[in-house]
Amino acid sequence: MIRKSLGELAALVGGEVVGDPAIEVSGAADIADACEGDIVFAESPKHLTHALKSAAVAVIARPEALNSHKPLIRTANPRLAFAKVLGALAPSSERPLGIHPTASVGSNLQSGDGLSVGSNAFIGDDVSLGSDVWIHPLVYIGNNVRIGSGCVLHPSVSILDNVTIGDNVIIHAGAVVGSDGFGYTLAGTEHFKIPQVGTVVIGDDVEIGANVTIDRARTGKTVIGRGTKIDNLVHIAHNVALGRHCIITGQVGFAGSTRVGDYCVVAAQSGIADHLKIGHQVTIGAKSGVMRDIPDGAKVLGIPAVPDQQAKRQIIAAQHLPELLRRMRELEKQVEQLQAKVNG
Amino acid sequence: MIRKSLGELAALVGGEVVGDPAIEVSGAADIADACEGDIVFAESPKHLTHALKSAAVAVIARPEALNSHKPLIRTANPRLAFAKVLGALAPSSERPLGIHPTASVGSNLQSGDGLSVGSNAFIGDDVSLGSDVWIHPLVYIGNNVRIGSGCVLHPSVSILDNVTIGDNVIIHAGAVVGSDGFGYTLAGTEHFKIPQVGTVVIGDDVEIGANVTIDRARTGKTVIGRGTKIDNLVHIAHNVALGRHCIITGQVGFAGSTRVGDYCVVAAQSGIADHLKIGHQVTIGAKSGVMRDIPDGAKVLGIPAVPDQQAKRQIIAAQHLPELLRRMRELEKQVEQLQAKVNG
Amino acid sequence: MIRKSLGELAALVGGEVVGDPAIEVSGAADIADACEGDIVFAESPKHLTHALKSAAVAVIARPEALNSHKPLIRTANPRLAFAKVLGALAPSSERPLGIHPTASVGSNLQSGDGLSVGSNAFIGDDVSLGSDVWIHPLVYIGNNVRIGSGCVLHPSVSILDNVTIGDNVIIHAGAVVGSDGFGYTLAGTEHFKIPQVGTVVIGDDVEIGANVTIDRARTGKTVIGRGTKIDNLVHIAHNVALGRHCIITGQVGFAGSTRVGDYCVVAAQSGIADHLKIGHQVTIGAKSGVMRDIPDGAKVLGIPAVPDQQAKRQIIAAQHLPELLRRMRELEKQVEQLQAKVNG
Repeated sequence: MIRKSLGELAALVGGEVVGDPAIEVSGAADIADACEGDIVFAESPKHLTHALKSAAVAVIARPEALNSHKPLIRTANPRLAFAKVLGALAPSSERPLGIHPTASVGSNLQSGDGLSVGSNAFIGDDVSLGSDVWIHPLVYIGNNVRIGSGCVLHPSVSILDNVTIGDNVIIHAGAVVGSDGFGYTLAGTEHFKIPQVGTVVIGDDVEIGANVTIDRARTGKTVIGRGTKIDNLVHIAHNVALGRHCIITGQVGFAGSTRVGDYCVVAAQSGIADHLKIGHQVTIGAKSGVMRDIPDGAKVLGIPAVPDQQAKRQIIAAQHLPELLRRMRELEKQVEQLQAKVNG
Repeated sequence: MIRKSLGELAALVGGEVVGDPAIEVSGAADIADACEGDIVFAESPKHLTHALKSAAVAVIARPEALNSHKPLIRTANPRLAFAKVLGALAPSSERPLGIHPTASVGSNLQSGDGLSVGSNAFIGDDVSLGSDVWIHPLVYIGNNVRIGSGCVLHPSVSILDNVTIGDNVIIHAGAVVGSDGFGYTLAGTEHFKIPQVGTVVIGDDVEIGANVTIDRARTGKTVIGRGTKIDNLVHIAHNVALGRHCIITGQVGFAGSTRVGDYCVVAAQSGIADHLKIGHQVTIGAKSGVMRDIPDGAKVLGIPAVPDQQAKRQIIAAQHLPELLRRMRELEKQVEQLQAKVNG
Repeated sequence: MIRKSLGELAALVGGEVVGDPAIEVSGAADIADACEGDIVFAESPKHLTHALKSAAVAVIARPEALNSHKPLIRTANPRLAFAKVLGALAPSSERPLGIHPTASVGSNLQSGDGLSVGSNAFIGDDVSLGSDVWIHPLVYIGNNVRIGSGCVLHPSVSILDNVTIGDNVIIHAGAVVGSDGFGYTLAGTEHFKIPQVGTVVIGDDVEIGANVTIDRARTGKTVIGRGTKIDNLVHIAHNVALGRHCIITGQVGFAGSTRVGDYCVVAAQSGIADHLKIGHQVTIGAKSGVMRDIPDGAKVLGIPAVPDQQAKRQIIAAQHLPELLRRMRELEKQVEQLQAKVNG
């Protein structure tokens, strides 16, 4: 267990201590999980009230938080401070340096310092790895793959031939990068496979969730922009280009050749059709089906996806539909009676 | 091939033989697949009619089934009896005891009797395994993992550090338990990763499908309750707590911190938003998008999910929508004519 | 880099050269990716205009394409010709023949010529492999599996016991074939697992995407028909039978025992309920939820899926819904006024 004083943690996050800076913190937890010795964070007065009632020894709070019976670290961004404190208090996994003797390594491996290759991992020929790369057991890396520095590949990840990965990329267990794109053309009565000879290029600081699949391009490249984060079980088809700093949540799918701008958020289980152009800072609501281009800054929702506000009006209206049908029948009856009276 | 007499099978399932108990049964099959020597089951008179026409040698039927030209086992729950007979007649997989010499095993492994560890499997340090645990080839088990007795981990399963698994848990190929939760906070223009230092706790008798992903908690734990069954390609985010004896079918997704009660059924491709409270014995229809808490016993359906009956009325009404638009235009015309007449 | 003359490529695809047949081509690319030395294809006059402006050295075009400043190969099916040219110009992966010494191979392996088994792969007992089978590193093949000739199993694929696979089947990384079907029956207060003793049979020329899951049958078999192509992260439940030459795109799910005809197209993220009969040449639109049988040749869309044209009318009508509500309120007011006048 790592212990740090409140003063050390405040210095780490650039915050101000209210109370005794010598108090010892031995863990960081969400309020619901807090035990003795833990520090928690509170972004709102309501959360602060909960935090003060919890078993936590101290609270990370906003600058305006008042003095309390628990010591505080006051800072402009409690969530970010909490993330940093979590990292500082977490025991770091011990990383066994070197290449495990049961790993298979091809010819011409180039690598920087601090390499870890776990047992039964496979590395093909002509692979280049930066410094401080951690390849867990049972990972597969094909031929002619380039991986930058500081990357972590979790167990059973597969990186197929010719893929390029930037620095500080984290790839979770079971993810596949560089599988063939899904492309066929009918030849008589059979589907003829279009060879997928392109590749995948992953930018720096990308994180890829467990069992995600990212297909290689037919020709050219599938691209994941710098800083983009991808949740579990997402499917990214061939020749897709995701921009920088996007957030792609669980089970989303992108069809082939679609281009997405920077700072987009795509919520869970959405699907984006092929060959679309999605702008920058676009938000796509959960379970949407995007069939058209989306301009910069738009928020869309629904199947097919339409502007957010319109979708919400449609949803509310749809809930009135059975009633609307009844009102329509009633009105038709009344009009008929009126007609009888007026015309008769 | 295992052969059992009808009498033996009836004793196994607590049923009553109608016909010759010495008749030999060599397999159990669905009616459509039945071959000579097979026993089939029939839950209804209609199924019984089909069963009697099939090639089966005998039928498991309800207590009220009448005498027939095929021998019967009569029992209150034919489906359950069939499941037991299937198990009794299936050749059991031969399990090679011991740790295969190509497996990697860390320090301080504790395990009960009857351990099987397949070739090229990886077991980290400080792992505890109960008795009769079967770890198939190419499985990864991280450090400080605890697994109860009678568990089966199929090939290429990944269990990450610190996860706890109960007794008699079955995990199918490619499933990942304990991948990082998907948590970031914006720090300036970059997404800062919130360390995911919690864990996953899986109860007894849980079954987890192929290529499922279950994320570890940010702090605290992600929980799968005792007896819950999870189908393939399901995504369970960090800090989710599923109750006991739930049925979660294919490609469902749960967002972070949602809590689900006991005996819930979540049908295929549904998504449940984050931080919700789903009660006990709730049924969520296929492809639903749940955006709100759901009380005990409710049945919901749709995107967004609403009570089942309401959703069905909306669906039917929606099918009348184009007609409704036409009727509206017609009515507007009639009212206009009436107005002209009355006011003119 | 492989280089071929335009004449050689035209001969390969049965096309006609317009221009100098001695011109050298060193790659094939999509128009957007084309570099010097590449050949591109154009299926329409618009694409041809783009192609002629690109850096490509030559263009594969339709027979009616006019003479141009770039040499052409004219052919009836430019896309198919392009696929063939891509294959001819792609450097073929070098396949290491033989069984890697770190692979585990059980007893009674039968195999044809040209077998490759990668490092740390696992092959169970009584396995039969055709000729020219390529099993990549870290693949798992259970007992009593039969695999035809010319198959490629990418890294971390799991083929469970008793599965049968035809000739020229490609299975991408992380796919699982033969996991247990999802079947339980309530025994008192617990879900009792119904043993899944059936198998999976995969026809010739099938392609299975990354991290797909195909469950074995309860009894009998789950079937994938000849020539069917399955994209990434698709879920196929127990006892499903897919016909021949179907196209199943990303993240689709089929529930148990559903039967699908030949030449069907199921678009992304659709779900098909259990025990349905889907005809031949059926098209299911993206994100559909199919709850009923579908006749031959039908096109369906929506949740629940209805005929394509009806679904599109419903979608358009739904977009008018908020306006319809307003018009209804207006009309009710007018009718009320009329009634007051006429009756008053």
